[in-house]
Amino acid sequence: MTKTVRSLENLEEPFNFHYPSGATIVTSHARGRDNAMAVAWHVAVSRNPAYYAICISSNRFTHSLISETGEFVVNFMPKERNDLVATVAGCSGRDVDKFRSFKIAASQGSRVKAQVLEDAFAAFECRVVGHHPYGDHDIFVGAVLAVQFEAAAFKQDGRLLDLERVKPILYMGNDRYATTGDGSVHIEREALVKAAMKGTAGLRGPG
Amino acid sequence: MTKTVRSLENLEEPFNFHYPSGATIVTSHARGRDNAMAVAWHVAVSRNPAYYAICISSNRFTHSLISETGEFVVNFMPKERNDLVATVAGCSGRDVDKFRSFKIAASQGSRVKAQVLEDAFAAFECRVVGHHPYGDHDIFVGAVLAVQFEAAAFKQDGRLLDLERVKPILYMGNDRYATTGDGSVHIEREALVKAAMKGTAGLRGPG
Repeated sequence: MTKTVRSLENLEEPFNFHYPSGATIVTSHARGRDNAMAVAWHVAVSRNPAYYAICISSNRFTHSLISETGEFVVNFMPKERNDLVATVAGCSGRDVDKFRSFKIAASQGSRVKAQVLEDAFAAFECRVVGHHPYGDHDIFVGAVLAVQFEAAAFKQDGRLLDLERVKPILYMGNDRYATTGDGSVHIEREALVKAAMKGTAGLRGPG
Repeated sequence: MTKTVRSLENLEEPFNFHYPSGATIVTSHARGRDNAMAVAWHVAVSRNPAYYAICISSNRFTHSLISETGEFVVNFMPKERNDLVATVAGCSGRDVDKFRSFKIAASQGSRVKAQVLEDAFAAFECRVVGHHPYGDHDIFVGAVLAVQFEAAAFKQDGRLLDLERVKPILYMGNDRYATTGDGSVHIEREALVKAAMKGTAGLRGPG
């Protein structure tokens, strides 16, 4: 197949990144104010020590709260709360006390003051260790101080999300939301490599 | 529900981040060598200009290739190529010429020398503009120079992945792979906010 190639240098409108990305709600707290913001641009950075990063536009109220206190929580949301993600995405914490107006059930983090949402299937409590502006967003890198999770949502002692029990929200861009299909498959990487290498050897022919 | 709280300070083993993340293959090129590596830790950083970041362990062969040339391609893979993602994840480019051994169909990027995979439904060609070590991985931030995509895989002129036609791979950690369910829903955020605010006004009672 021939791919369409789009150069981004002469693009008239901002580029949109369209592929599934877990929809999260990032919470922050400063000056006695709590805020919640929908964030699809987030990423694991390091396992040991555990670092997690989020990308936030400097226009956002959340950006100012995190900049003040250096703390945030990444809340991973299930499909049933599509509505909450869209609602917090639809207005600014400058104008609205979202926790109060939208009756968001939450409790303060165990290690940070930002809120952990009751409906999140997992939440990472983070303290900012680095901050890098790039274009229209800033990367905030956080040390993960604690993780909260619904034990029933995971298998293998919290090591594998149980997709038969939890349907995580996937954000597709342009206000579109999807989720996972049922289950997952386990693929043994070493076995595949071994088989593929054998195939190659065979193709080379004897000798 | 009461969440399980896990402090990460006294964790004996490295923390795993378990939620769905798009499985990509990052390609790189230097010294006449091409490599392909499975990467689940990637994120959009900025829309205008377009920046995209990947997190790569400094032990990786890909890390040394990207460090040399400052170029990489992020290839988004469909479910049918679970096997390829697992295979490239199962060995190092130091030991194996993966493109040759696994017969990976690809062609050189339009703006970078790294390869764009034929089976990718989208690929971002990037040039490194920033590099930040955190813990056991480095964040490489790339300016997206060009995007290649299968036009048939997208709706709205490349702005929305068509989940009825493409099943993107979601990596769940621990060698487990999932994908999306059918379709996506559109949620009008402003309408939800308006409805929620009305509800609040009503709850406050008259006056």
